Amino acid sequence: MRVLIFGGDGYLGWPTAMALAARGHEVLTVDNYLRRTLALQTNSEPLMPTPTLEARAAIFQAASGFLVEVAIGDLQDYGFMSRLVETHAPEAIVHYAEQPSAPYSMRGYPEAALTFQNNLTVTFNCIWAVLEQHKKCHIIKLGTMGEYGTPNIDIEEGYIEINHKGRTERFLFPRQAGTLYHTTKVLDTDLLWFYVRLYNLRVTDLMQGPVYGIITDESAADSRLYPHFNYDDIFGTLVNRFLVQAVAGVPLTVYGRGGQTRGYINIRDTINCIEMAMFEPAQPGQLRVFNQIAETLSVNEIAEKVVSAGKDLGYEVQVRSIPNPRKEKEEHYYNPTHTGLRSLGLEPNLMTREVLAEMMERVAHYKGRIDTAKVLPRVKWT
Amino acid sequence: MRVLIFGGDGYLGWPTAMALAARGHEVLTVDNYLRRTLALQTNSEPLMPTPTLEARAAIFQAASGFLVEVAIGDLQDYGFMSRLVETHAPEAIVHYAEQPSAPYSMRGYPEAALTFQNNLTVTFNCIWAVLEQHKKCHIIKLGTMGEYGTPNIDIEEGYIEINHKGRTERFLFPRQAGTLYHTTKVLDTDLLWFYVRLYNLRVTDLMQGPVYGIITDESAADSRLYPHFNYDDIFGTLVNRFLVQAVAGVPLTVYGRGGQTRGYINIRDTINCIEMAMFEPAQPGQLRVFNQIAETLSVNEIAEKVVSAGKDLGYEVQVRSIPNPRKEKEEHYYNPTHTGLRSLGLEPNLMTREVLAEMMERVAHYKGRIDTAKVLPRVKWT
Repeated sequence: MRVLIFGGDGYLGWPTAMALAARGHEVLTVDNYLRRTLALQTNSEPLMPTPTLEARAAIFQAASGFLVEVAIGDLQDYGFMSRLVETHAPEAIVHYAEQPSAPYSMRGYPEAALTFQNNLTVTFNCIWAVLEQHKKCHIIKLGTMGEYGTPNIDIEEGYIEINHKGRTERFLFPRQAGTLYHTTKVLDTDLLWFYVRLYNLRVTDLMQGPVYGIITDESAADSRLYPHFNYDDIFGTLVNRFLVQAVAGVPLTVYGRGGQTRGYINIRDTINCIEMAMFEPAQPGQLRVFNQIAETLSVNEIAEKVVSAGKDLGYEVQVRSIPNPRKEKEEHYYNPTHTGLRSLGLEPNLMTREVLAEMMERVAHYKGRIDTAKVLPRVKWT
Repeated sequence: MRVLIFGGDGYLGWPTAMALAARGHEVLTVDNYLRRTLALQTNSEPLMPTPTLEARAAIFQAASGFLVEVAIGDLQDYGFMSRLVETHAPEAIVHYAEQPSAPYSMRGYPEAALTFQNNLTVTFNCIWAVLEQHKKCHIIKLGTMGEYGTPNIDIEEGYIEINHKGRTERFLFPRQAGTLYHTTKVLDTDLLWFYVRLYNLRVTDLMQGPVYGIITDESAADSRLYPHFNYDDIFGTLVNRFLVQAVAGVPLTVYGRGGQTRGYINIRDTINCIEMAMFEPAQPGQLRVFNQIAETLSVNEIAEKVVSAGKDLGYEVQVRSIPNPRKEKEEHYYNPTHTGLRSLGLEPNLMTREVLAEMMERVAHYKGRIDTAKVLPRVKWT
């Protein structure tokens, strides 16, 4: 299939691009290096050196023979976006092109404004480029489980039927996110839902949990093809941060009581979910929502797993609770439904001791590059 | 009280400014004439000539002795907004500063992009200016009943308690609007709700129904003080359009079957609601929602009322159904709760035959300026 990947330089974008190309799809990736720029500005560069998107595409092609096309530009520019969609007439667009850091979005006005402006504008432009240039195109949008927050009722897959005073209606499942970044995704969903209802667009909105993982089939052989592996408090995600702390010999830092529970997913499963969504697209007029997670785990449970994996490799890993820089519930009910992707055939990878130990070994090769000061919280919500 | 009115040149902004000044408040109005500019560009100018905001403030002061301060500028410019809030340290901000036309927002990409950009950016900036400059300030935001759409269950006042699989949680009442304009207000609500939860802002969000009316106490004596009275398909609202058609001797144009039911409110009540909200502000951390309507009426019921009012004045008013240019349900359940404002003391004005006849007489003075071609739908949703 012909597919455009918006945000193709990102932690998910690049591995997705390689995997789809290797599986025979025609892939054009688009990026403006926003994430790299912000990581540079905030002293949050990744553990492994990451060549430019163009350089990585060349390395990948030399190694595998598969082509990943690259276009560099800002998708907030509607003319640029629109010409891409017109010229390439993709069957699917995978839209990852958002400022991805929750802590960054909570730093202050400039960072909040950039996040708000970038994320909403790119989604808005994506909708209109498809409407005006190629209405059949299936938009696969990366949302987040964080859109739902941590409600006291079971989280259904996108929608909920409400019985109220003897009458019934089906609505989007109510969303109330905990950071501005996650809130921009709530707004994206509202916007997509409106245009889907009005103009019969085809959209799959993936409510994804935090992702972990370094390698995929395509990057295993060459570290220059690894995705951005951030371990700092701003662009790094929890599991990656813990692994780096374990290797560096500093305690894993749990925010507050550590009962914060989320749905996690391995980076390999993210890619599989995207391809399954491509093969079975949403119907015209359908906003299809999947809760894209493999399992739910608390921060304390993940810390324990990292301790065990460390033990296997000879690391004695400590865990330390620090004051929570975020405003979030540290103990709460959490029970999300996630059957949609399994019904499409997903066989999820779980966060086993072995998987974590393998990641830890990769991280250990870069031990000399670790700057542990970057891991501690530099952004507070208050 | 010290109050800033964002969008002070608008149909609601200007009458609100005069009324609050006459009731002893210190009023600064802010506008960039966006509505005037768009009305000019779309051949949608109001029935009565409307002097500039500065000219009207001078006319009002000469007539009444009350001062309405005026600042002209674009609230999308955060520096401008932030300095206003810092300098004036208002106790309340009344935020009307949004592109207000649903049909305009549905015209095409440029109009949709302008609406989306303007409305969201001004709300975002308003939140941050208050956060950074004067956190105690009460934001009174004009939302719309259109945020809810026309669900098959009773519409509660802002929130709903959902019982699901034996557990309970309170959420914002689900919103699904029928136009991009109304959707920008859904997004505003989501954004306000997030920042209220995180940083304890004080916000009142008014889910207002379509407004009708020409004069208020302050404008009755001088037509140069009337609000923008638009009767075209883009900036005019239903009741105003019907009255102009009645006076012009052309049939009232009902879109489709005319069963579309909404909650209506008189412009005098809008102003009273704003002042009541000012006197009893939302608490820190509270997003208080009022369904700001006086009564629910279908399009057919309003047409009948206009026919009756016309009869009193000697007009023989015809009614004609035309193909619906919008995508909306023409027969539907509609039962919104609206008790919050009554509990603050609102005694609503209803849409009586007398009220409509009085408006019709005012319109009749301007019969020679009516261009009936402007009333018919120029924007289609499809």
